[in-house]
Amino acid sequence: MLDLKSLLSNYDPKAGTLLGAVPVERTLRDLQGCFADRAAYETALAQSNPLLYTVAAVEPARGEGDLHYGIGKIMPGKIGDEYYMTKGHLHSWRPAAEFYFGLTGDGVMLLEDEASGESKIVPLQPNGVVYVPGHTAHRTMNVGATPLTYLGVYPANAGHDYSTIAKTNFRCVVIERDGKPVMMERKKL
Amino acid sequence: MLDLKSLLSNYDPKAGTLLGAVPVERTLRDLQGCFADRAAYETALAQSNPLLYTVAAVEPARGEGDLHYGIGKIMPGKIGDEYYMTKGHLHSWRPAAEFYFGLTGDGVMLLEDEASGESKIVPLQPNGVVYVPGHTAHRTMNVGATPLTYLGVYPANAGHDYSTIAKTNFRCVVIERDGKPVMMERKKL
Repeated sequence: MLDLKSLLSNYDPKAGTLLGAVPVERTLRDLQGCFADRAAYETALAQSNPLLYTVAAVEPARGEGDLHYGIGKIMPGKIGDEYYMTKGHLHSWRPAAEFYFGLTGDGVMLLEDEASGESKIVPLQPNGVVYVPGHTAHRTMNVGATPLTYLGVYPANAGHDYSTIAKTNFRCVVIERDGKPVMMERKKL
Repeated sequence: MLDLKSLLSNYDPKAGTLLGAVPVERTLRDLQGCFADRAAYETALAQSNPLLYTVAAVEPARGEGDLHYGIGKIMPGKIGDEYYMTKGHLHSWRPAAEFYFGLTGDGVMLLEDEASGESKIVPLQPNGVVYVPGHTAHRTMNVGATPLTYLGVYPANAGHDYSTIAKTNFRCVVIERDGKPVMMERKKL
């Protein structure tokens, strides 16, 4: 049956919201362990617990061949030299890929191949699209001065595995150097 | 291996094009058999063979869990009371769904459940999203006065089956009545 209510959705690219949906909010406290500069993290958290990002998803169906999409909004800001970022995740079903469509602001995605650890940073900008292949951990960060918003489209059965990243974190960090995002190995910091 | 060239793409929402890609073009002649008013079709074709729409696709990989996306642009215009439209298709792998993201202009999608023939029309507009479930034939049309552009995201293994629609056409047609799109059964025209 073609149930129109489940088939239609609307998003606000500037606000980074889905009409009629309550987003999940992630604050600085939720990002415990994500930032490399622990002293800067603790100092910032002692002062306040700002909102770092929100996500909301459209999930019309959950069968094989179905798709979901989400909208994300990351606030501008830094902890030490690291940009406000998402926790990052792998897909529980590892082969599942994801397309990210930049809407507003200036972002960077950190991609890490799970098997080899190979890491790359790529821009996420309005009208730009990033393909995250399967088996690839991905984290999004706001490297600009205004909110970053984007859409992500993925197979309905992808699933979100946050725990693998939470255990080991990404192999690389992205920090600001001379006003630009630069990727470095975490162990060489 | 994270091959950045295959992972990054850019589109122009207004032009309805992918940067660096040559689009497929469909002209009035290519839409033979699609429009209900055959006399109007033949009359129009005798005068000229205008471009009706273009499509271009990004196909980073073709495995299970991979995704593709395309950008479409439909010109404004009508043949008789029917709007310029795409041929329409089912996915060869029937369970494959598709998300359509409206970019510019004013569109309508005709959805038809393959098994039951149940048909619905839904708007496709900027910041609006249409979910096309699996097993659902879908055709897009421009019901406005300016070009309609949109993105479609689908599983890499969806495949495009145009032949089923070409044999029987959609059960319903969408025609302009009092300046608005209205769906009617083809046999009741």
